Amino acid sequence: MHKKLFIPGPVEVRPEVLAKMAEPMIGHRSKDASALQRRISDNMRKIFFTESEILISTTSGSGLMEGAIRCCTAKKAAVFSVGAFGKRWYEMAVSNNVQADLYEVEMGKAVDPEEVDKALATGEYDLVAVTHNETSTGIMNPIEEIGEIVKKYPEVVFIVDMVSSAAGSKVEVDKCGIDICITSTQKCIGLPPGMSICTFSEKARKRAEQVPNRGYYLDLLQLYKYIQKKDYQYPSTPSLSHMFALDYQLDYILNEEGLENRFARHKEMAKIVRDWAEKNFELYSDKNHLSNTVTNVKNTKNIDVSALNKALGERGFQISNGYGSLKDKTFRIAHMADCKVEDLKELLKNIDEILGL
Amino acid sequence: MHKKLFIPGPVEVRPEVLAKMAEPMIGHRSKDASALQRRISDNMRKIFFTESEILISTTSGSGLMEGAIRCCTAKKAAVFSVGAFGKRWYEMAVSNNVQADLYEVEMGKAVDPEEVDKALATGEYDLVAVTHNETSTGIMNPIEEIGEIVKKYPEVVFIVDMVSSAAGSKVEVDKCGIDICITSTQKCIGLPPGMSICTFSEKARKRAEQVPNRGYYLDLLQLYKYIQKKDYQYPSTPSLSHMFALDYQLDYILNEEGLENRFARHKEMAKIVRDWAEKNFELYSDKNHLSNTVTNVKNTKNIDVSALNKALGERGFQISNGYGSLKDKTFRIAHMADCKVEDLKELLKNIDEILGL
Repeated sequence: MHKKLFIPGPVEVRPEVLAKMAEPMIGHRSKDASALQRRISDNMRKIFFTESEILISTTSGSGLMEGAIRCCTAKKAAVFSVGAFGKRWYEMAVSNNVQADLYEVEMGKAVDPEEVDKALATGEYDLVAVTHNETSTGIMNPIEEIGEIVKKYPEVVFIVDMVSSAAGSKVEVDKCGIDICITSTQKCIGLPPGMSICTFSEKARKRAEQVPNRGYYLDLLQLYKYIQKKDYQYPSTPSLSHMFALDYQLDYILNEEGLENRFARHKEMAKIVRDWAEKNFELYSDKNHLSNTVTNVKNTKNIDVSALNKALGERGFQISNGYGSLKDKTFRIAHMADCKVEDLKELLKNIDEILGL
Repeated sequence: MHKKLFIPGPVEVRPEVLAKMAEPMIGHRSKDASALQRRISDNMRKIFFTESEILISTTSGSGLMEGAIRCCTAKKAAVFSVGAFGKRWYEMAVSNNVQADLYEVEMGKAVDPEEVDKALATGEYDLVAVTHNETSTGIMNPIEEIGEIVKKYPEVVFIVDMVSSAAGSKVEVDKCGIDICITSTQKCIGLPPGMSICTFSEKARKRAEQVPNRGYYLDLLQLYKYIQKKDYQYPSTPSLSHMFALDYQLDYILNEEGLENRFARHKEMAKIVRDWAEKNFELYSDKNHLSNTVTNVKNTKNIDVSALNKALGERGFQISNGYGSLKDKTFRIAHMADCKVEDLKELLKNIDEILGL
């Protein structure tokens, strides 16, 4: 039996979108491929509220995250982490011999913009990396406020991981001063995993020009130059199936559901899960910075999370246990992509029945 | 109208395989995901005739090529190039600050194993990179003979690009002493583009342990360690759609068509196109080293290749012009993946009609 996914990616994908994954191939050096890729870029600009160029990579979000921190740090990167995916930026820097410092926040808390200010005021850094939505803890960082701080430091390139929030939570990339904003297909966009997308500002481009040894496949500057020269075609063969599905889904998001409606639906779903969690358990994370796309529930009743998930599986649902060290201490319910309010309510009803709540 | 692709990737994909690309998602940290990925690895070992571990990457073939040359060169790499994709190895090394020398062969010729011997005899190199099948020129390098030479140098890691030949042309990886053999889904395997696969020998693993700054997403050693620890699950979310389709197609290749039959069909198709080319044009490449998966035809009649492709397009077919500087001097017909002999004959018949041959 298929299990409806309420995990923070991969998400449940609409049958119409899945059908697009099965379209026959076209040549990736054809005019049709150029038009397809240009259309995706134009629509992704709307999702991100940006005038910057869009780059597409046949990788998971981690691919473009690595590309961003490696290509755009000339001096030193300041990585602000609130969980596993924040720390990943730092590991990426270190593994590429890119100078970086890790600023870690206590689990379940958000980044304090003042701490960003203090770090950047040292003058040591020319790049700052922040996670917008941290799925390991259920925190959504105050990215607008952090953006206001970063704007005070014109030499600093601002890179943001919006892997699990883009198209689900509103962040206006240009207004926030974000130079590289990264997402991937298998979260709020509502596609299968396998492709990632980012914005690439003029400032990021100029910085990359100064950085040697940017590598090949994840070199954002090479991608940028290539698509300018080759009418939006990419150096390597991209995942055309994802392109077909993404093109279709972006049209749906922008012209059928509407972006603001989509953001509102994510907020509504978040509220439902939070209310349920507060009634029956507790919220794990700082209430001022709760994620709109995934809720991390503190396991105050000490339930057996694996047993719950097994019972849910028999009913056709799947949620997530806590991440890493939180494995049994929390459980996570994702409410992202094309999940409907009714689907979510049905999930919660089933949990109530299983746990006798 | 859909155009049947006779270009050297993406290829025509069987409808049954396309349907698998549209399967609903599963959690990538589930037991089902582990079983799926383990099964793919087991079957890929049969395709490659190897006992080595298999690594899977959500990238095009270039991703794993870069990972291989970066992770496994401690001293200096010798890159033997017979065309555009051979040169790419070298560009990848340079862009990662990996020491490398480029040995280029005249266009249309194959690598001479004696030249490999001469280069390795200098003692300068600890890695040698070779393309098995070069789609830009239509050359298939004598990989077994090169392998015999490399075996004389036990400190040298042997990495081979089989992107456009694996599952279409027989190369026994272990017998040839290949440490990392790379392919991707959109060529002879017969899937859409978006995933690449390689073998990873003990020798390659030991070498990578000595190489610092291997990066993150394309670090083959990290992938290797992760799948050992996590029961064949990968550090980042992989393209599950490609996994579903690959799993299905490997079963078809191994248990329905049969690998030897598949190799034989590729040889038969190559012969048909070569005979046709020799009757009407000339073969571009050295006749002793012709590719079994793509034929590069010398445009001796000075036909307008774009016009031919346009006319073919109206009949539902697509072939390739020459690559790069060969653009109008040659044209290429690919005969790979699940292309049937009858399909190929129909293509040639249509070319005959259009050109009045």
